[in-house]
Amino acid sequence: MPLPEEFHALARKVNNWGRWGTEDERGTLNLLTDEAVRRGVAAARTGKRFSLALPLSQNGPQLGFIPGRINPIRTMISLNEPLTGDASQVCFSDDMVVMGVQAATHWDALAHASYDGRIYNGFGAATVTAAGAARCGIDKAGPILGRGVLLDVARALGVERLDSGYAISSDDLSAAADLAGVAVEPGDLVLVRTGQMRLLHAGDKMGYLAPVAGLSLRSVEWMREHDVAAAATDTVVFEVFPWERDDAPLPVHLLHLVEMGLTQGQNFDLEALAADCADDGIYTFFLSATPEPLANGLGGMVAPVAIK
Amino acid sequence: MPLPEEFHALARKVNNWGRWGTEDERGTLNLLTDEAVRRGVAAARTGKRFSLALPLSQNGPQLGFIPGRINPIRTMISLNEPLTGDASQVCFSDDMVVMGVQAATHWDALAHASYDGRIYNGFGAATVTAAGAARCGIDKAGPILGRGVLLDVARALGVERLDSGYAISSDDLSAAADLAGVAVEPGDLVLVRTGQMRLLHAGDKMGYLAPVAGLSLRSVEWMREHDVAAAATDTVVFEVFPWERDDAPLPVHLLHLVEMGLTQGQNFDLEALAADCADDGIYTFFLSATPEPLANGLGGMVAPVAIK
Amino acid sequence: MPLPEEFHALARKVNNWGRWGTEDERGTLNLLTDEAVRRGVAAARTGKRFSLALPLSQNGPQLGFIPGRINPIRTMISLNEPLTGDASQVCFSDDMVVMGVQAATHWDALAHASYDGRIYNGFGAATVTAAGAARCGIDKAGPILGRGVLLDVARALGVERLDSGYAISSDDLSAAADLAGVAVEPGDLVLVRTGQMRLLHAGDKMGYLAPVAGLSLRSVEWMREHDVAAAATDTVVFEVFPWERDDAPLPVHLLHLVEMGLTQGQNFDLEALAADCADDGIYTFFLSATPEPLANGLGGMVAPVAIK
Amino acid sequence: MPLPEEFHALARKVNNWGRWGTEDERGTLNLLTDEAVRRGVAAARTGKRFSLALPLSQNGPQLGFIPGRINPIRTMISLNEPLTGDASQVCFSDDMVVMGVQAATHWDALAHASYDGRIYNGFGAATVTAAGAARCGIDKAGPILGRGVLLDVARALGVERLDSGYAISSDDLSAAADLAGVAVEPGDLVLVRTGQMRLLHAGDKMGYLAPVAGLSLRSVEWMREHDVAAAATDTVVFEVFPWERDDAPLPVHLLHLVEMGLTQGQNFDLEALAADCADDGIYTFFLSATPEPLANGLGGMVAPVAIK
Repeated sequence: MPLPEEFHALARKVNNWGRWGTEDERGTLNLLTDEAVRRGVAAARTGKRFSLALPLSQNGPQLGFIPGRINPIRTMISLNEPLTGDASQVCFSDDMVVMGVQAATHWDALAHASYDGRIYNGFGAATVTAAGAARCGIDKAGPILGRGVLLDVARALGVERLDSGYAISSDDLSAAADLAGVAVEPGDLVLVRTGQMRLLHAGDKMGYLAPVAGLSLRSVEWMREHDVAAAATDTVVFEVFPWERDDAPLPVHLLHLVEMGLTQGQNFDLEALAADCADDGIYTFFLSATPEPLANGLGGMVAPVAIK
Repeated sequence: MPLPEEFHALARKVNNWGRWGTEDERGTLNLLTDEAVRRGVAAARTGKRFSLALPLSQNGPQLGFIPGRINPIRTMISLNEPLTGDASQVCFSDDMVVMGVQAATHWDALAHASYDGRIYNGFGAATVTAAGAARCGIDKAGPILGRGVLLDVARALGVERLDSGYAISSDDLSAAADLAGVAVEPGDLVLVRTGQMRLLHAGDKMGYLAPVAGLSLRSVEWMREHDVAAAATDTVVFEVFPWERDDAPLPVHLLHLVEMGLTQGQNFDLEALAADCADDGIYTFFLSATPEPLANGLGGMVAPVAIK
Repeated sequence: MPLPEEFHALARKVNNWGRWGTEDERGTLNLLTDEAVRRGVAAARTGKRFSLALPLSQNGPQLGFIPGRINPIRTMISLNEPLTGDASQVCFSDDMVVMGVQAATHWDALAHASYDGRIYNGFGAATVTAAGAARCGIDKAGPILGRGVLLDVARALGVERLDSGYAISSDDLSAAADLAGVAVEPGDLVLVRTGQMRLLHAGDKMGYLAPVAGLSLRSVEWMREHDVAAAATDTVVFEVFPWERDDAPLPVHLLHLVEMGLTQGQNFDLEALAADCADDGIYTFFLSATPEPLANGLGGMVAPVAIK
Repeated sequence: MPLPEEFHALARKVNNWGRWGTEDERGTLNLLTDEAVRRGVAAARTGKRFSLALPLSQNGPQLGFIPGRINPIRTMISLNEPLTGDASQVCFSDDMVVMGVQAATHWDALAHASYDGRIYNGFGAATVTAAGAARCGIDKAGPILGRGVLLDVARALGVERLDSGYAISSDDLSAAADLAGVAVEPGDLVLVRTGQMRLLHAGDKMGYLAPVAGLSLRSVEWMREHDVAAAATDTVVFEVFPWERDDAPLPVHLLHLVEMGLTQGQNFDLEALAADCADDGIYTFFLSATPEPLANGLGGMVAPVAIK
């Protein structure tokens, strides 16, 4: 089944191929200029910090539906082992970890999604091999930090949590920006809150995983027009799931990652930050969210921190 | 062989047990107050960024001497896999990773080292089990960010790289602070440069691993007096190796992690940052270096970024 | 809660500590003498083979209830990679695997279970460390092969599958031996069929995992009297689960592994073999079931084959 | 560089495509008929057993030259953990393992090698994907057991160990069969001893890995003429390395795996077995060497046992 003309029209509108050169592998992260970073730094006023990462734990959100996307398993490789054989001297405990890169809080690399044999900037999908992403891997992203803006769509629509399956539109994003009293600027890092994370906090993993409120086809132009540098949500899918049109599965992944080169973040825990923003009415902050530089990685774990 | 009295005397001098309460598991990270963070933010002036992380790669620094401390191995769990079976629609490439937590750029958790049955704050070493660190795990650290100060000891001593095995003293640290023109303040994050990373850049892994220039017994009081929040170096061992006194193996680990509760970072790549500091004469910056919150982890991977 | 006197009395009766010397780490596997092996070889008459192993697959029986006991995840480390860069010459595809040792078809090492600080033969439980089993690890087992006897308890009791939670007694084992027309001899390898595997074949993983029909306290003397070399079942728990007495959790593990030194096998797929035995009335065969020799392993994966 | 005509001529001579049907994925393992298995069983006379597996250990033979082919790392997921919280009752120690499938003693799946886009029986190399071998995976092999014949080439040539890099010919194999006094029959399992394992036993891993004595182009017809069911050696490469002709890298892999469908085994420890055969002059035995049935695996770990 071919993708519908509506999708292709939108793709043409938001496409960024070539915008930063034919060899570019970073897409909208190029918008993180020194100036954008300074704007981000200026948004840190009080020094109050919010960690947005899920713990890396075997009790993480994954339930095994995606083969290999396993919750982090951390095991001991030494346990109070005396270096010299004498426990009154130095002893060490070390560990190792195995995990699905996309299991917890992470950024998708631009190479994570493809269609019609292409990834971002027109590179062939075949540049992704068993050795990983030769092009547009997460190791090409570099530091992801700048001004963060919380778009609390749930609060803007007057609910604690969007209905699972709610499709977020450009109007919803504008409403959230209005609530925040913020004009989103080129190079901002946007955190879109659905409230879905409340399900995970409440222990409802199945409910957390699906269905999922998220960005819809009708939100993509907004992201392009505002020249957002990267966007993350508090869900596992990022976009609305199930998808809206039978003939366009997970279209936002394709429009963001492939067409725009917009790096996407998932499983960001926005609850404590959102409560604070609601409290003081300030929805901007410095966001520091640099992924682990996995060589040729299709994604990268990240421990994001917001500083207000 | 008992640890020498000199060690114990030093331990008593620098000890921080109880300083932040009997239940404290964060040690000197408590010095990262809102004020210290604001001081850090103020040190970001231009927005120029420096990534201090080694790539997570199977070509990483480990050579297999420490069983289980393996370089990161990232393998594909799906490769341009069409979600609906139709490759003209959305296809995904996902990966997983297995690695020694301490293999590349990382922070040691306070629970990483013990002696005489104790970890930081007097908790029993037996609180570390096959399930990891019940106390003082890296998941207790929280955000690590604030004002970073580069103490370029190599440059202060007029060399590109300290001799492998050079033992850094308090005087050396003071000389580097003088070079930097910085008064290190409580809650600062200190990066100590030896230049050892040049060996790794040059492909000399064996040389990089040992011997190692690093902090010595004679540097510990300096760290305590300046109330440093956390310290990292550009080596795999952090302290000088081989150690100086036969009767005190790896004493700085014990004095930092166990006695002071000072979180230590290893394998920070300081070369590009150091070149820039030498260039503009400015050795302070905002340092964002929050570890992956591995539940009960004995360490945490980190992708540190300095912003000048 | 102390273990009940009934348990301790039984423990004294079946105990094998010291029987094969104070340094023995193999327990009843010592009964696999050359003669016992020859008896096994003689039981292979037609050459017909039955694989008793579950596939090592991410779709394996584990559902995540036991942290770390993950189904096997096999990923590619190279994929038709041309050795010389030229795909018209030799290309290789390699893989790696990560799995819980006890995830699929496996033998428990004697060191797998302990109580009151002891494992088999009185060795301290503390001989098991983060480095694994210094004593009684699976690497001490050696070849496990000899005469296999299928005790089809389900068929002996006239059902296709024992009720989940059914507690198998000595009488049941005798009934199955009668059905088989076999006198179990010292050094035989006994496969006890409950039919529970049918649940897994039918896709009912939850039903397969619990509750479980299995060997009960009232079967242990039978195993000891017949001097069985090793025993395996077609379930994940091996013994009846939930256990029969509140004050004696999983007692058969303790009596077999710790007291008798009887190596136990789990998740053996006995369905095809059982059908053939029912067909031709012959319940003995050569069983070849040597575990992977994992150094210091608490268990070992095994690909058992029965030859009739 | 195209493969030379000599190679192609040999390929045509030994090719088995279609011999067992167009859908066959087992190649010469089809020769393991009931009769061949009975012949194997008859070769077990005394019941004496020899384990041919290397221990699965982090001290295994791999030195890191092949990315991802890591020695087995076995870590604890529980350590004498009381099931009910009471250590006077049942406690469990469990483990997990991560390893390169081809790291220690293993069989290559037929899908392990390809050239010109083909694997065994003409299936496309593209049937191997990130999900593994859809065709000719190790899970298709089934039980590998039958009559084993030790061809002790080193002994036949009057040395303890063949020179590293020695290229074994058909004449050498015949000489070893003569020494053994055995006529190799269709469906036999052949173990070719070079003595290279002595280097590993002596701790010389580098010497063990390369160069390697092994089967050469001039041995392939012998294997085909004798209709061997599977062949294994005591080296890491199986065939002679470095290869003999610049224009034909690792040709035996292609001729065995791709053209003949002959399953190959590596890292079989033949030392103790060979000593016994030299002792009693009997070079045949029952060989039980069924691989772990890794779903879609490109190879399978195996714990082979010879019974004389």
